[in-house]
Amino acid sequence: MGTGFFGTIEKIPFKGADSTDPLSYRFYDPDEVVMGKRMEDHLRFAVAYWHSFAWEGGDPFGGRTFDRPWYDGEMDKAKLKADVAFEMFKILGAPYYCFHDADVRPEGRTFAESRKNLEEIVDYFARKQEETGVKLLWGTANLFSNRRFMSGASTNPDPDVFAYSAATIKSCMDATMKLGGENYVLWGGREGYETLLNTDMSREFDQMARMLHMVVDYKHKIGFKGAILVEPKPQEPTKHQYDFDVATVYGFLRKYGLENEVKMNIEQGHAILAGHTFEHELALASTLGIFGSIDMNRNDYQSGWDTDQFPNNVPEMALAYYQVLKAGGFTTGGTNFDAKLRRQSIDPEDLLIAHIGGMDCCARGLKAAARMVEDGALQKPLDERYAGWAKPEAQKMLKGEYSLDQIAEKVERDNINPEPRSGRQEYLENIVNRYV
Amino acid sequence: MGTGFFGTIEKIPFKGADSTDPLSYRFYDPDEVVMGKRMEDHLRFAVAYWHSFAWEGGDPFGGRTFDRPWYDGEMDKAKLKADVAFEMFKILGAPYYCFHDADVRPEGRTFAESRKNLEEIVDYFARKQEETGVKLLWGTANLFSNRRFMSGASTNPDPDVFAYSAATIKSCMDATMKLGGENYVLWGGREGYETLLNTDMSREFDQMARMLHMVVDYKHKIGFKGAILVEPKPQEPTKHQYDFDVATVYGFLRKYGLENEVKMNIEQGHAILAGHTFEHELALASTLGIFGSIDMNRNDYQSGWDTDQFPNNVPEMALAYYQVLKAGGFTTGGTNFDAKLRRQSIDPEDLLIAHIGGMDCCARGLKAAARMVEDGALQKPLDERYAGWAKPEAQKMLKGEYSLDQIAEKVERDNINPEPRSGRQEYLENIVNRYV
Amino acid sequence: MGTGFFGTIEKIPFKGADSTDPLSYRFYDPDEVVMGKRMEDHLRFAVAYWHSFAWEGGDPFGGRTFDRPWYDGEMDKAKLKADVAFEMFKILGAPYYCFHDADVRPEGRTFAESRKNLEEIVDYFARKQEETGVKLLWGTANLFSNRRFMSGASTNPDPDVFAYSAATIKSCMDATMKLGGENYVLWGGREGYETLLNTDMSREFDQMARMLHMVVDYKHKIGFKGAILVEPKPQEPTKHQYDFDVATVYGFLRKYGLENEVKMNIEQGHAILAGHTFEHELALASTLGIFGSIDMNRNDYQSGWDTDQFPNNVPEMALAYYQVLKAGGFTTGGTNFDAKLRRQSIDPEDLLIAHIGGMDCCARGLKAAARMVEDGALQKPLDERYAGWAKPEAQKMLKGEYSLDQIAEKVERDNINPEPRSGRQEYLENIVNRYV
Amino acid sequence: MGTGFFGTIEKIPFKGADSTDPLSYRFYDPDEVVMGKRMEDHLRFAVAYWHSFAWEGGDPFGGRTFDRPWYDGEMDKAKLKADVAFEMFKILGAPYYCFHDADVRPEGRTFAESRKNLEEIVDYFARKQEETGVKLLWGTANLFSNRRFMSGASTNPDPDVFAYSAATIKSCMDATMKLGGENYVLWGGREGYETLLNTDMSREFDQMARMLHMVVDYKHKIGFKGAILVEPKPQEPTKHQYDFDVATVYGFLRKYGLENEVKMNIEQGHAILAGHTFEHELALASTLGIFGSIDMNRNDYQSGWDTDQFPNNVPEMALAYYQVLKAGGFTTGGTNFDAKLRRQSIDPEDLLIAHIGGMDCCARGLKAAARMVEDGALQKPLDERYAGWAKPEAQKMLKGEYSLDQIAEKVERDNINPEPRSGRQEYLENIVNRYV
Repeated sequence: MGTGFFGTIEKIPFKGADSTDPLSYRFYDPDEVVMGKRMEDHLRFAVAYWHSFAWEGGDPFGGRTFDRPWYDGEMDKAKLKADVAFEMFKILGAPYYCFHDADVRPEGRTFAESRKNLEEIVDYFARKQEETGVKLLWGTANLFSNRRFMSGASTNPDPDVFAYSAATIKSCMDATMKLGGENYVLWGGREGYETLLNTDMSREFDQMARMLHMVVDYKHKIGFKGAILVEPKPQEPTKHQYDFDVATVYGFLRKYGLENEVKMNIEQGHAILAGHTFEHELALASTLGIFGSIDMNRNDYQSGWDTDQFPNNVPEMALAYYQVLKAGGFTTGGTNFDAKLRRQSIDPEDLLIAHIGGMDCCARGLKAAARMVEDGALQKPLDERYAGWAKPEAQKMLKGEYSLDQIAEKVERDNINPEPRSGRQEYLENIVNRYV
Repeated sequence: MGTGFFGTIEKIPFKGADSTDPLSYRFYDPDEVVMGKRMEDHLRFAVAYWHSFAWEGGDPFGGRTFDRPWYDGEMDKAKLKADVAFEMFKILGAPYYCFHDADVRPEGRTFAESRKNLEEIVDYFARKQEETGVKLLWGTANLFSNRRFMSGASTNPDPDVFAYSAATIKSCMDATMKLGGENYVLWGGREGYETLLNTDMSREFDQMARMLHMVVDYKHKIGFKGAILVEPKPQEPTKHQYDFDVATVYGFLRKYGLENEVKMNIEQGHAILAGHTFEHELALASTLGIFGSIDMNRNDYQSGWDTDQFPNNVPEMALAYYQVLKAGGFTTGGTNFDAKLRRQSIDPEDLLIAHIGGMDCCARGLKAAARMVEDGALQKPLDERYAGWAKPEAQKMLKGEYSLDQIAEKVERDNINPEPRSGRQEYLENIVNRYV
Repeated sequence: MGTGFFGTIEKIPFKGADSTDPLSYRFYDPDEVVMGKRMEDHLRFAVAYWHSFAWEGGDPFGGRTFDRPWYDGEMDKAKLKADVAFEMFKILGAPYYCFHDADVRPEGRTFAESRKNLEEIVDYFARKQEETGVKLLWGTANLFSNRRFMSGASTNPDPDVFAYSAATIKSCMDATMKLGGENYVLWGGREGYETLLNTDMSREFDQMARMLHMVVDYKHKIGFKGAILVEPKPQEPTKHQYDFDVATVYGFLRKYGLENEVKMNIEQGHAILAGHTFEHELALASTLGIFGSIDMNRNDYQSGWDTDQFPNNVPEMALAYYQVLKAGGFTTGGTNFDAKLRRQSIDPEDLLIAHIGGMDCCARGLKAAARMVEDGALQKPLDERYAGWAKPEAQKMLKGEYSLDQIAEKVERDNINPEPRSGRQEYLENIVNRYV
Repeated sequence: MGTGFFGTIEKIPFKGADSTDPLSYRFYDPDEVVMGKRMEDHLRFAVAYWHSFAWEGGDPFGGRTFDRPWYDGEMDKAKLKADVAFEMFKILGAPYYCFHDADVRPEGRTFAESRKNLEEIVDYFARKQEETGVKLLWGTANLFSNRRFMSGASTNPDPDVFAYSAATIKSCMDATMKLGGENYVLWGGREGYETLLNTDMSREFDQMARMLHMVVDYKHKIGFKGAILVEPKPQEPTKHQYDFDVATVYGFLRKYGLENEVKMNIEQGHAILAGHTFEHELALASTLGIFGSIDMNRNDYQSGWDTDQFPNNVPEMALAYYQVLKAGGFTTGGTNFDAKLRRQSIDPEDLLIAHIGGMDCCARGLKAAARMVEDGALQKPLDERYAGWAKPEAQKMLKGEYSLDQIAEKVERDNINPEPRSGRQEYLENIVNRYV
């Protein structure tokens, strides 16, 4: 028997592209086979517990707009929240969810109490998972909301906060392990600075690396088989966050010998804030061998902060899934909707509609991307463009068999004077528009 | 006997803070000792040949506004340009200059001809250097202006362009070596992409790394003692440049084993375009052990492109030099004015005035920074903020003597529940304002 | 007999959505009827002479990449350029074109010579128009490229430049009149400032208004029936342009009593630079009664300058055409492609392919928008949302029949305490995605 | 007897530029005469009640960090808050303060209750003002925090919210009148939209104009002598706010005939968000005759949201006060610190230190600006630059005595061919640096 939060809605059906029913899927058919794999297994959708169930609609200029029966409460409310959440996962047919500790359990007066609260709710979640078949894509620790973390978690000038953070991560890793989570994520929302005037970047890097090493060690110790993922974001809440973007995190991992242990959870909105496209971050992570999972959402291009909107631009999303497919698709990762309702979208139905729209757009994007891959629509022109590098002399040059002066000598000897060739950008853009 | 380009002006004198003579220094006194070193030896000013002598005042919506007697010519004009340039270095008392090959020599019809032109002008420069005592801070190759480089230099899909670029770099390294240059710089203005649709990032990274390895090898081969510097820039001219910012380049160097061979030439304007402050990039390079030199200029905060203005905001510059001093000051590096006149500043005098203003602001910034260092004005509060980490238990934690679960256990045992402490940002900002 | 520039291509055919021929239209069928009007008459496509025929592929870091047979010449080359241009208009089936004086005629040594050159080429164009049936959407004066305009045209501190600009505009209005142009456009690329330090904004506003008044007066004097359009742009080339955005120009027109004489030519890329969406600027112009024409292109969201790319994102374009249709569609205005090839797209074929892609995307966008209008897909929910304002008491309040204190009294008397209602953003976004 | 909140601190003394006491003024000496007026009378400092006493340190990723004894309470806590606030005004020697209704009184269950709460606290404030001599610079209504305003106040689709807003404004205008406030401010934080899809801009403009007309009428009805000020902001919290910037508001006022009744309250941070410098907005408001008051703060140039930091960059501030002085200085307006502590600055002392720093920087900026005005440092070169316009022929042209064709004729007759003259930007920047 349900909570009644979503009225009598039981399941969002797939009705096909012509459906005008706002409570149906037009493109997301979990069982449709795309490139030899069920769509559900490609996309691996997850609902973000925080945005959909913990966020109250506030913004810097106004408070709560939503009115949920589980607000302002203790453990009973936390369980009601869980009941509604798992109901929504089922209604949507979302195979996964993701959570922070702070989303799901009441804060205790002490660390021990918070941990116990988490354990109680994890047991509750475990039963829910069993009942519904819904799984955990990833767990994570909220090390940024409580005032104790205002100056950072692992990078805090106070070693007690470092310790408190370590203990919190441990309890969240334990919870993730217990719930069969397929990844563990670290997003360092306060690991950065407001002003360099009070910051010793060098120390804070070492602290952050120490924490990450301990996380990796603990993963191995407890036999957690999932991936450890870092989620880059350049700023907000702080002026500068150390996990600025994929390239920055990669350098950090290299510096501290962690590049084989940690992968990336990449968010569209964070890519935009860092001055990149989403597909750039995906392609870069793949190039660097650290692609893990995605946080699918959309940032408003005119707003300078993280708007975390549900995605809706299919051509852009097709380019993102094209990179995911080129990277081999998800293994432990998936498509987490790190997206929140607009704060004016206060009805329970809005929660469903937003996810339906997002999932349908992902499905359209994936299908377009898959057709591009299958046709070699972009790959063939690409191979042709670099074809010159396949020649033996070029390969020798690339492999280091010539020195700078040898090449210089050859340029003069052969009077090499290359003519530019068209980059054909518009041609390729038109090709993409055939698929979306 | 001079060219007369600057009329009768022979030397910009230092006249002190009260001077109202626009052709005098108010703060830059090369011989003044700051923190035990002459100001000239601290700042190591260099004039950028390209902006001051090669750029013609064009922008995307209009052509040449300047009217210089050396435009539109061949070798004789190149020598006239050199005559005026070295005159200006002397008038300003600038100890260094920097150049690209394309700034100083006419382009030949073949590579060999371009190389010979460069060698001829290098000989001419060598005599000028001897006559004037002016030195070369760094040389570099222009691998972005000619249409052959439109799709990249080392990252071009055409291996012939790679070869041409290698040959060009070799000739520029030879020129730099011959002129006693103290560094060699690589700025990859076209090493990036306009669209991912026609780009294989993975291949292009390997190509770029190959080139950099060849540069490093050639440096050692010829016994060049200066530093190899990469200059990051996130975009412009291309949509994305691979040398996005300091953190990105660091990851790249690490990936290809170059982190001990290459340092950074950091530009204020490029930092701004990448979403950072200048001092951030400086502090980061220092933290990562790759700080080399600076391109001093200013970007307009409201313009989304690289405005390369002469710097004029002393409080900001003081924070930049504070990072330079904290990094130990320049060794081979210096302060290159990668700044150009506004295109409406068409008079020869404007060239002098712009440099005077920039040099004076640098001097003020340096002096303020030095006083902050000497007083420990920022260092003392910083040390105090992190003092907790000096305790033995904290040190153990940082050094990896505890595991995640051991720390968790301790947090519960000791009921660690840290109270936040003020970050005192405004207090520190007020302190800085005591010095600027 | 043609120039052969485009080889043997004579006409781009419409082949339907399934076509994979890059030289065919998939959606643009000029004769297809949309909302009771032929698609050609809805969209009124124009090719921009400057980007396609005058621009040479340069950017701030590199020169010409294109290699066109009409570069570097005098009148004969100008005519060759015209031959190719009109060939392209015919091949594309573009009914209109637009030009600046400087795009089409060689610059003379004096104003009189420039004027005569323009007249000669206008005669040539007139014959071309007659032969081909291609028409002029609008003409305009280039008052920004020549160095004389470096400090502004009408807003120049030198009244001689004002006079020169006035004379230039007169000759361009005469040319537009003679060629049957349907609008005359003013884009003030240098009407603004680089620094407030040397700028008297108040004077410059008066100068700019004077020029605009003279333009309007001259229009009436010569009986020009087309619209006078101002094209807003916030910045670039200058730091600040006075025609910042639609709202800014509207205030200016109001201040100088020109709001009934001048309308807006709105460009997507300029909207983006001003921090708006394209549809915002369109909706605002419509609300203010000054909507005129559009410059269709696309700005790269990650680049901070005007990239003037060919448009390719259909969902965004559908929202733009939705506003155009809501504003009643074009009257004298049309869809001008103020878009240039990427500088690496150096082949003649790229010119065709870029326009084909842009025109097809416009056609898709228009058709989607038309269906939304016909279905009332967005209008019905909108009317419902504001339905409360239809009530008599609300109308009285809106019409000024109550004072602030009367309303306050009523709020207390009736204990008005409104409950918020969902804004349903995601629901509406999903609806749009049904159409695109 | 005080509250003890600030310990034993009673008064911040002026100690001069060499003071190292963080609790002293180094430049702000209220009685120092600058350009014939006491500094206090020039600057007219006001403390913002909301940031300093109501804001709790939250941001989008974390909650309250401050720990103030007046949080979470009803009327008694509101009075304690007032006690501390007025203590701080006295300690700082700030002559003014500003407030919203929601900052100062508990929210009631009904409108009437909220109004009564406001009246009670206004009486309390009146006594405090009398005791301390502190005055009210402006009052305003908070029409954005409560969820009832989530879709706008005057622009809400629900007329009941319009009515509620009107009633709220009336009570705030009454309060401002009673407390002798010198201005009444309207900031439309939710007067805009999140998406055009659910917005009828035309209707909302009419609603907003109706409200503004009622405000103006009510002002005259009650005999309020202060100015009605609108505060522009381009976005945040919403995607687009109708009061985007000074130019936008000006057009709106003109459209609805309000340009003689309403002036601007201009904030540095909002100017930056709109893509302008602060001095631009000030100069523009002055040019348009609608300059009123300023909200002094600072936006972080790298953060895309309103950071509302205390100002600290004196050279920038000098340029702002230069515009204020050129506009004739403040009449009813003043310098309100719309600035909040960083959320890590949790100590009571931080509140004092932040204001001291801000006030000192304003004083330095004002003094530098005054010297520039007195010396004509910028005005003389400016007059010289436009000197050509003083000639009779130029004046005739400006006054409309010539038509476009008459000027064109003259250009040909006299062969006018203007040579550009240097804009001297760097020269002028160096001059400014002599004063700051």
